[in-house]
Amino acid sequence: MKKITKKVNAAIIIIGNEILSGRTQDVNVVLISKWLNNLGVKLDEVRVIPDIESSIIKTVKDLKSKFNYIFTTGGIGPTHDDITAKSIAKAFNLTYGYHKEAYELLEKYYGKKQFNVGRKKMAKMPTEASLIINPSSGAPGFNIENVYCLPGVPSILKSMLGGLVNNIVGGKKILNKNITLKTVESEISESLEKVQNKYNNLDIGSYPFFKKGKVGVSIVIRSNDKKKIDQCYKQIVSFVKKRKIKIIER
Amino acid sequence: MKKITKKVNAAIIIIGNEILSGRTQDVNVVLISKWLNNLGVKLDEVRVIPDIESSIIKTVKDLKSKFNYIFTTGGIGPTHDDITAKSIAKAFNLTYGYHKEAYELLEKYYGKKQFNVGRKKMAKMPTEASLIINPSSGAPGFNIENVYCLPGVPSILKSMLGGLVNNIVGGKKILNKNITLKTVESEISESLEKVQNKYNNLDIGSYPFFKKGKVGVSIVIRSNDKKKIDQCYKQIVSFVKKRKIKIIER
Repeated sequence: MKKITKKVNAAIIIIGNEILSGRTQDVNVVLISKWLNNLGVKLDEVRVIPDIESSIIKTVKDLKSKFNYIFTTGGIGPTHDDITAKSIAKAFNLTYGYHKEAYELLEKYYGKKQFNVGRKKMAKMPTEASLIINPSSGAPGFNIENVYCLPGVPSILKSMLGGLVNNIVGGKKILNKNITLKTVESEISESLEKVQNKYNNLDIGSYPFFKKGKVGVSIVIRSNDKKKIDQCYKQIVSFVKKRKIKIIER
Repeated sequence: MKKITKKVNAAIIIIGNEILSGRTQDVNVVLISKWLNNLGVKLDEVRVIPDIESSIIKTVKDLKSKFNYIFTTGGIGPTHDDITAKSIAKAFNLTYGYHKEAYELLEKYYGKKQFNVGRKKMAKMPTEASLIINPSSGAPGFNIENVYCLPGVPSILKSMLGGLVNNIVGGKKILNKNITLKTVESEISESLEKVQNKYNNLDIGSYPFFKKGKVGVSIVIRSNDKKKIDQCYKQIVSFVKKRKIKIIER
């Protein structure tokens, strides 16, 4: 009987005009993707969309049935342009209002006197959401079905991922093996394609680089099957040695 | 008579497993977005998708009628995982094969002897595409209708944008004005919302930051209407001064 390997995937929805305008360099994709790799979840799509309610609703509705997990980043703060919570409530036809647990948590965090309108807004979300605890700045994220809503500030987002580990049920961990060669892609493309055709279940990526006058190619093999990765790696090393191409790093 | 301001928008499709896996930090979105701002084109969506033919075809078909311009990055090199050109040909029902001009250009660039199978592959694309000249490494990008296919390596991509300026017909240039305050978002959210409601055609973004123990908020006003931006900016400065909030930068 063929062993079934469960594949678990995810998508990220980045909600933020500041990313689209080029003002802010996103770094959350790399952060979340590496965290998911360790949990055996493969990131299969990212969308960056503007702070527009209809765009958020449409994108969430479109993706939530296509991927096992959806992570949104951004738009859960206290200002007028933070509309993620309201939009998610609409996407799921849920009541948007003060979340009892979030309200109490934030009131305690800020103290009754400092708990102003802006801060209270961060307790507004789909009222039946599960909270994602924020150990670094109080205001929680939230979860509805397979959608997890996180903040946009990378340091805060990072501090919240740890508390989510138990919510994510991944498949086999995705492994990778790299080899970096002193060559150009066109010199190895034929040999590499032959290896890829032999191991068509592995994901073999070829990435050229040009820095400080040095050229090279990094080859990355990705799969959840360690044995197959090792076999494939050997075949690459074999043609590389035969062709007398210098290995920079492995 | 109301003056009609033409709005021109764009989307980017990033084709690359290396971005999704977290191995590579994308920097092309910021690069292309800033370049588009100067041309009066607003980036309205970004999708990061894997090196899978069906994903590329579906995404291109889905987006090309929704945006004025589509830019793809990645997947036009010589290796087996470079499948953008073939996929774009399929998305437009065009013949995929050697592009006469690209073939001649690359043969001249490498010299007949060095023009191997891998390098020849970079001359394969929709045969009726227009070329996008690559001043830094030979292999051209290409354009079909409103879709512009660029490489993934940022330095090469950057060198190719200059040659594209004449292809892009933008609207009014998108301007922005920033002010950075020593405060937290929840302290200014009410006042800022009032200003946003008054200037509902402007895009006012509020971005908190926390670095090296310092907290602050950057407010960014974006629009193609300089006069409205200046009026809005004055109103923000006015409430900031009234509330005795320190201006860090403006």
